[in-house]
Amino acid sequence: MIKRYVFGDPVETESVLWKPEAADWQDDRLFCRDNAFYGDLSGEEIVYGLGQNVRGINKRGWLYESYCTDDPRHTEEKHTLYGAHNFLVLDGAGVLGIFVDTPGNVVYDIGYTDSRKLSIAPQSADFELYLIEGESPDAVVEVFRRLIGRSYIPPRWAFGYGQSRWGYDSMNQVREVAAGYRDNHIPLDMIFLDIDYMERYKDFTVDKERFPDFRGLVAEMKEQDIRLVPIIDGGVKKEDGYDIYEEGKEKGYFCKDEEGEDFLLGVWPGRCCLPDMLQEEAGRWFGSKYKILLDMGIEGFWNDMNEPAVFYSEKGLAEAFEKIDAFRTQNLDIQSFFEFQGLAAGLSNSPQDYASFYHEYRGERYRHDRVHNLFGYYMTRRAAEAFEELEPEKRILLFSRASCIGMHRFGGIWQGDNHSWWSHLLLNIKMMPSLNMCGFLYTGADIGGFGGDVTEDLLIRWLSFGVFTPLMRNHSAAGTRRQEVYRFGTAELMRDVISVRYKLLPYLYSEYMKAALGGTMLFRPLGFAYRKDGIAGQVEDQLLVGESIMIAPVHEQNAAGRTVYFPEPMKLLRFHGGNVLEEAVYPKGHAYIGMPLGDVCVFLRENHILPLSRGGECVGDVDFAHLERYVWGTDVKPYAYYRDDGETKEFDLEKHVEMLTV
Amino acid sequence: MIKRYVFGDPVETESVLWKPEAADWQDDRLFCRDNAFYGDLSGEEIVYGLGQNVRGINKRGWLYESYCTDDPRHTEEKHTLYGAHNFLVLDGAGVLGIFVDTPGNVVYDIGYTDSRKLSIAPQSADFELYLIEGESPDAVVEVFRRLIGRSYIPPRWAFGYGQSRWGYDSMNQVREVAAGYRDNHIPLDMIFLDIDYMERYKDFTVDKERFPDFRGLVAEMKEQDIRLVPIIDGGVKKEDGYDIYEEGKEKGYFCKDEEGEDFLLGVWPGRCCLPDMLQEEAGRWFGSKYKILLDMGIEGFWNDMNEPAVFYSEKGLAEAFEKIDAFRTQNLDIQSFFEFQGLAAGLSNSPQDYASFYHEYRGERYRHDRVHNLFGYYMTRRAAEAFEELEPEKRILLFSRASCIGMHRFGGIWQGDNHSWWSHLLLNIKMMPSLNMCGFLYTGADIGGFGGDVTEDLLIRWLSFGVFTPLMRNHSAAGTRRQEVYRFGTAELMRDVISVRYKLLPYLYSEYMKAALGGTMLFRPLGFAYRKDGIAGQVEDQLLVGESIMIAPVHEQNAAGRTVYFPEPMKLLRFHGGNVLEEAVYPKGHAYIGMPLGDVCVFLRENHILPLSRGGECVGDVDFAHLERYVWGTDVKPYAYYRDDGETKEFDLEKHVEMLTV
Repeated sequence: MIKRYVFGDPVETESVLWKPEAADWQDDRLFCRDNAFYGDLSGEEIVYGLGQNVRGINKRGWLYESYCTDDPRHTEEKHTLYGAHNFLVLDGAGVLGIFVDTPGNVVYDIGYTDSRKLSIAPQSADFELYLIEGESPDAVVEVFRRLIGRSYIPPRWAFGYGQSRWGYDSMNQVREVAAGYRDNHIPLDMIFLDIDYMERYKDFTVDKERFPDFRGLVAEMKEQDIRLVPIIDGGVKKEDGYDIYEEGKEKGYFCKDEEGEDFLLGVWPGRCCLPDMLQEEAGRWFGSKYKILLDMGIEGFWNDMNEPAVFYSEKGLAEAFEKIDAFRTQNLDIQSFFEFQGLAAGLSNSPQDYASFYHEYRGERYRHDRVHNLFGYYMTRRAAEAFEELEPEKRILLFSRASCIGMHRFGGIWQGDNHSWWSHLLLNIKMMPSLNMCGFLYTGADIGGFGGDVTEDLLIRWLSFGVFTPLMRNHSAAGTRRQEVYRFGTAELMRDVISVRYKLLPYLYSEYMKAALGGTMLFRPLGFAYRKDGIAGQVEDQLLVGESIMIAPVHEQNAAGRTVYFPEPMKLLRFHGGNVLEEAVYPKGHAYIGMPLGDVCVFLRENHILPLSRGGECVGDVDFAHLERYVWGTDVKPYAYYRDDGETKEFDLEKHVEMLTV
Repeated sequence: MIKRYVFGDPVETESVLWKPEAADWQDDRLFCRDNAFYGDLSGEEIVYGLGQNVRGINKRGWLYESYCTDDPRHTEEKHTLYGAHNFLVLDGAGVLGIFVDTPGNVVYDIGYTDSRKLSIAPQSADFELYLIEGESPDAVVEVFRRLIGRSYIPPRWAFGYGQSRWGYDSMNQVREVAAGYRDNHIPLDMIFLDIDYMERYKDFTVDKERFPDFRGLVAEMKEQDIRLVPIIDGGVKKEDGYDIYEEGKEKGYFCKDEEGEDFLLGVWPGRCCLPDMLQEEAGRWFGSKYKILLDMGIEGFWNDMNEPAVFYSEKGLAEAFEKIDAFRTQNLDIQSFFEFQGLAAGLSNSPQDYASFYHEYRGERYRHDRVHNLFGYYMTRRAAEAFEELEPEKRILLFSRASCIGMHRFGGIWQGDNHSWWSHLLLNIKMMPSLNMCGFLYTGADIGGFGGDVTEDLLIRWLSFGVFTPLMRNHSAAGTRRQEVYRFGTAELMRDVISVRYKLLPYLYSEYMKAALGGTMLFRPLGFAYRKDGIAGQVEDQLLVGESIMIAPVHEQNAAGRTVYFPEPMKLLRFHGGNVLEEAVYPKGHAYIGMPLGDVCVFLRENHILPLSRGGECVGDVDFAHLERYVWGTDVKPYAYYRDDGETKEFDLEKHVEMLTV
């Protein structure tokens, strides 16, 4: 049962496609006061959701916010990350889904102030609230997903493995990466271009010195079955003579400050203007510019910095310089020194700046902070809508850093600028089901970690989990240790691991498509499937992937295995050295499983089929028609295998599903 | 077998008390080139040691340094923390202990560049190297501990529970904390005073407005069996008329810059001078000043900021202001903006500053960076030596933030400015055995976490581990959530947990004293005790505490239990609601154990005795003479129970040990 409540005069976010009639407020579970909602949490209750955020699958015990934020240090004390995903599922005495539809901030106190209390406080009085009751978390999620519409479906090649790095700043560097993979027979489908390909970090430009024949490079790579996927920034460089800046300025497409002047902020290129992605004409204009790169043969993009990230505003910087002067003559003690240090740090993404510029949205003017979470969404949506016009028959790869619910229909996300930390591998694991609930299916984290220096074992372990995430990308920042797998002494182990992805592809793609078309989850917490099991709901580092398998990745350094909780009997399939070994069936309970570096273990559920291909060095190599079937049990249920051409948009479950039997 | 090698002309650190004859370099295991050492690591080899540092009990897979550093964000990519502990134990084909005796930096590549290679690179050509071969890690540690001398022994009351917070800035605040504990019958032995008690952060002063009757307050608290433990800073405020500054300046006791002027740096009070703790007369002078507080009834201290932490140097700050000016007129792009932001951040603890002042040490002049790691050591040592003169019969509590090996004879350490992160509870667990190896027995982390906001469950779980650490202190930073246990709705659970400490005290104190006097470890990794067990060596979150028990703390949010690995059969004793419940004997292998919030579980080894007292609200209440004995097995070995008066210094195993039988 769904109830929709309208508070004040909400901004229409277009997150929800199908709106039930609004009801008068009345709820037994939540108490409403001053446009905030309060409830009790029973001892055993689990709180799922919030998409991309810190901490666990169970969100109990912290204070969260929903405010798209560019903060690369995802430590436990943070409250929000790049996305704003206002959907929760409470599983206690009953099951309740809660969605707050608002483009501004929402503060969630989930047992932080008091471990038995919940509060949800939208920071604006104008919002819509949806309450969904259901038999189970799965059922509530399915209803919610129907409200918000079908998840984005990328081309099938985007399920291949990709290599990325901030720093591929010449054609030869790209060629070297391609050769590193192809020469070593390590599968690869994509090379991502970070900001280095651009001319002075200007959107939709290519640096002519470093990439003199970009179009040729794109074609040359495609010959090798490798797609180049360039980055696009949310800000447009303020530079006289730069056509996109000139055009945006002339047509008034940029966000304005209080005085009606173009709001100036610093991002990669230095001083920039922000296209008003929310204003339809401006957004469409920006979206139309992707054609420049499509015309060079590009088939995929990643949208960055669209929280929007603000290194500084023109005004904030000037003020900071003034304040700095006041510190010159002081005796800087513990208070004043920290204030001084905070001046530079506090320049970025400041609430003051977010309150100092404006959007035109659906015919009205809004101060940015009121509609903050829509920026990345509309940047991505306008690009997707442009692709729909420019390439109506073809799927284009698109994913974003910032997002809110609604954007899941138009693109995927990556999980932001993480670090080469074991704890971020674990965070990646935990975030997958939370994102899936909110409609984000095409997602993954930067494998190996973006910031900081990776170690061989971390990269191997992360790849061993990454083989299951739809977006499987190895990415790292300039100045960190090089992270391409062929550079390591253990490259052979890494090749074995990446190859597992290509064996799994028919299953993963099939499960992805069923989840997208059916509004279900690809990654499910154990607590969803085994609700009556007292332990399953506490397991934060194992997941169900699709209907047939469970995974339990190793996420600790120097561990040669781990304990696994089996909520029901399962059979261990071990990918080892290019082979699939069928090992023991483990009974319900805990068991320690040896998992040396390079092995990928999956746990096959009884009477379920896992179809595998023979693999390949790119998605194009994979034979989706001839599959091996792994199975155990005496009452095997047929597997609904989804297969399409992977390129066009005729998605149809009935037409594309074939029932596989043993 | 011990070998001692001398390279170049080493600085005598006085870390080692007993030096074997120096040998000519010759070793099968390590290869020496350019004063660095290279070795192979076998697949199964475990590398223990490095005391206070990031990552695991097994240090494989990272790059570490030994350079005392004030950095409150202990994330995985860091290389060094507050202490410099150059002792490793390799347990592979053979067992090898390695100690690098040097006061400067040492870089350890333990399977980072190549997972099968080890390198140790002292950053100076002048150092001593000790190699210790032995039958087992335990045996190697015992030999090493004989070299470096007996670990510090605090008064027994310092094994009680203490409450601390940056922010207790009045007599009434202190009284309120005392009352919060005493009125609620929550045990307490210490209240720690952070920088707030001082007058303008000046060492050995008391603010007369906020603490008008400090001496009276100390006595009033002691009446309640609560000791006040004040903080001391490593820097002395530059302030005309401040007697300690004036005296230090006049006598030339401060570190000098290149021109021979007093080196000026910013710390808590703003501009400060650094007493030259390494220069004997200056160090003794500083040590003698603790008498000012001893005379007010104080019996314990914590030495802070003695890495030494440098917020900024006078010169560095001036240069930064100049550089800032150059940024004013630029278009700050991604490179230049990050440079600009880095200017303020980079002011603190900069290598340039550490290379810009000098010490007199043992009659010679040294640039600071060459002898960096000795600063905290000698600050603490000179205080301890002063106590020896001022109070020869009495134990004084003393612990430090910075340290190097050698300092373990003079004081304990706390584990620095951690955060209210679950991962820091885990780091606390992992650091205990690593520190014990290096002689640091009196240690613990800030329970609940110093930075950031704690949650109730984190505090309960951290207390549940903290009941085992010799230093058991709840500490938090100004501006964070208040962390005194009586403030929480679950205070009763927390009281139950803290009470466990007082029941365990006879055992913990006995085990501590035997470890200190016998040169053994209080906390041992499972890999030490069960070397032939393939799994025990990988267990990073369980420890043996003394000879009778194993612990397996819960360190994950929302977990109501955890899997425990039993390397041999053990019996579960559960402290629950003030009672001790004897539960099942678990066989060798893994088992899931329910551990609800508030329960403390210990696992009793077969044929070992765990003696427990009836508890108390302070250490003075605890009856060490009448004990309950918990035991299982048919061939129980007697327990060597150490008991003394806890105050004087007549340490003698034979005299104080009584054999307890069932």
